[in-house]
Amino acid sequence: MLLSAEDLPVGNEIDCGSYEVTDGDARDFAAQWDPQYFHVDPERAGDSEFGGLIASGLHTMSIYQRLVVTAVYQRYDVIAGRAFRHVKFLRPVRAGDVLHCSATVRSVTPDGPGRCAVVVDGRLRNQHGKPVLELELDCLVRSRHRTPAH
Amino acid sequence: MLLSAEDLPVGNEIDCGSYEVTDGDARDFAAQWDPQYFHVDPERAGDSEFGGLIASGLHTMSIYQRLVVTAVYQRYDVIAGRAFRHVKFLRPVRAGDVLHCSATVRSVTPDGPGRCAVVVDGRLRNQHGKPVLELELDCLVRSRHRTPAH
Repeated sequence: MLLSAEDLPVGNEIDCGSYEVTDGDARDFAAQWDPQYFHVDPERAGDSEFGGLIASGLHTMSIYQRLVVTAVYQRYDVIAGRAFRHVKFLRPVRAGDVLHCSATVRSVTPDGPGRCAVVVDGRLRNQHGKPVLELELDCLVRSRHRTPAH
Repeated sequence: MLLSAEDLPVGNEIDCGSYEVTDGDARDFAAQWDPQYFHVDPERAGDSEFGGLIASGLHTMSIYQRLVVTAVYQRYDVIAGRAFRHVKFLRPVRAGDVLHCSATVRSVTPDGPGRCAVVVDGRLRNQHGKPVLELELDCLVRSRHRTPAH
């Protein structure tokens, strides 16, 4: 049974599990979607401010999404996402890092017939407990109060 | 020769080419990173508000990133991205859509020794000319005025 918008646990921080970033995964993702030198070229990255390869921000966001979808959104009666706001890449992510995900439903607001706008704060921390990603998602979730079909 | 922050073409809309979304790509991406029913389950998606599968927003952002990196950022002396702001998913993206990318450097502001904060407005339009994604990137680009190494 999927949770309707009115039943979401507003204000509770939800543990969404963790994910280990591997060198292969990080390079494969970046080679396909974000081929900047600091994601794909170890030699040039070694000479940069970061002293080595860092994971693509899109890869980091995708890891967050996989964890939050599996732990949270698959239990909610989600219609779709509308926007990310304030997506902050706070620290470099590197191969070998273990990223821990949590999410908090911040608000649920009626938004048209049968649906609510839901704002979710999400974050990833690394194995040292330091935040590496913070974001807000604005999505639509079905309401318990549906409009009649006929 | 990479462009330094001071040489970026502020205010010019840059054509970054286009990308055709295939059903296989969209489902593979979503199965790995965003397994919500409206991205991976044709039957449930068919009964939803969208009447069929739609692409993951993360996939849409990754397509944007691939196009803008290849056309633009690989020519700039980029240090790293810091944040996305106002990432808006404006219309559903579906298999068969051809997404056209453009980007505009909006501002370049000194930000610490040897570097500038650069804000880039990016967008994807579909084959009907309708916007499907808009976002702002806040990134760091090296300055022409480097601090001496010694």
